[in-house]
Amino acid sequence: MKTYAKKNFPLTKIRRFLEPGPIVLVSSAYKGERNIMTMGWHMMMGFEPAMFGCFIWDQNHSFDLIRRSKQCVINLPTFEMIDAVIGIGNSHGPGVDKFEKFKLTPVEATKVSAPLIAECYANFECRLIDASLIKKYSLFVFEVVKAHVASSPRYPKTLHYRGDGVFMVSGRSISYRSRFKRANL
Amino acid sequence: MKTYAKKNFPLTKIRRFLEPGPIVLVSSAYKGERNIMTMGWHMMMGFEPAMFGCFIWDQNHSFDLIRRSKQCVINLPTFEMIDAVIGIGNSHGPGVDKFEKFKLTPVEATKVSAPLIAECYANFECRLIDASLIKKYSLFVFEVVKAHVASSPRYPKTLHYRGDGVFMVSGRSISYRSRFKRANL
Repeated sequence: MKTYAKKNFPLTKIRRFLEPGPIVLVSSAYKGERNIMTMGWHMMMGFEPAMFGCFIWDQNHSFDLIRRSKQCVINLPTFEMIDAVIGIGNSHGPGVDKFEKFKLTPVEATKVSAPLIAECYANFECRLIDASLIKKYSLFVFEVVKAHVASSPRYPKTLHYRGDGVFMVSGRSISYRSRFKRANL
Repeated sequence: MKTYAKKNFPLTKIRRFLEPGPIVLVSSAYKGERNIMTMGWHMMMGFEPAMFGCFIWDQNHSFDLIRRSKQCVINLPTFEMIDAVIGIGNSHGPGVDKFEKFKLTPVEATKVSAPLIAECYANFECRLIDASLIKKYSLFVFEVVKAHVASSPRYPKTLHYRGDGVFMVSGRSISYRSRFKRANL
């Protein structure tokens, strides 16, 4: 599968890829174990610091790896990765290395120990900054500490989950910039 | 502008429209005032009860109306409503009635006092069930108590915000249902 050449990307702009609501792949590592999960319940929570919240069910193997390591990487898959996205959602760790099973390439991150997925369009390295909502809401609050984003295409073709096995594929992006009040961009 | 004929919709299925990450219009009312705001930072937080979390900046006039009334309606606009979506984002209440200004039709809700927007494809009536995260994270946790969804088209053409005035328009929806393990649908 294709990998992307990526550049460092400003953290204040990562909403460009996360706010539209794509399915993401969450990679994690702890004490020699690593895992990947598919995740669709997430939201931006702040620009500076760049904050990102997401719901991780406590029955996922990744739940423990992320809670214990206090880190993860949010990876943005594109439409071409649909087989891996569905396959990962169907698999359960531990006991299966999803990088090997789905032929994904782990790349060392710069600020966390969880691996980046080379085949994804973008990778966001995250540190857990608030664990207090995990028990009540399965809500993990992360600070995004480093962003790697492909230089092209400008916008990726992403997958957005509707439940019941149905994905919406992202359509075209249109700029209405001239019609916005500057303070509201 | 077109209005939609809507039906009651099962609350356990509302992820179909919210999980893909569209921009929504939040309507609210409190003591004779009403307002609408544009909002893009939100996530599903549970199926049963249907829970929905969103970030509402404390500088928005809607912040006070929602916090005080403990209710709102999440309305799903379609691409045809782009002018209203941008216009509402550019406007600041109080002092302007956005229903009048943008020629939107308020419809009485069944379980909350905030009005539904008739021109939107779907309307989700919400009750605030946790106000404890508003101060720290501007995070409102709602239970969706009633859903009204258009009978057709099957999937709406929604707007997904990227920042900087750029919207992604939703593309086609594709079912991969046969490839999912049943428990993971």
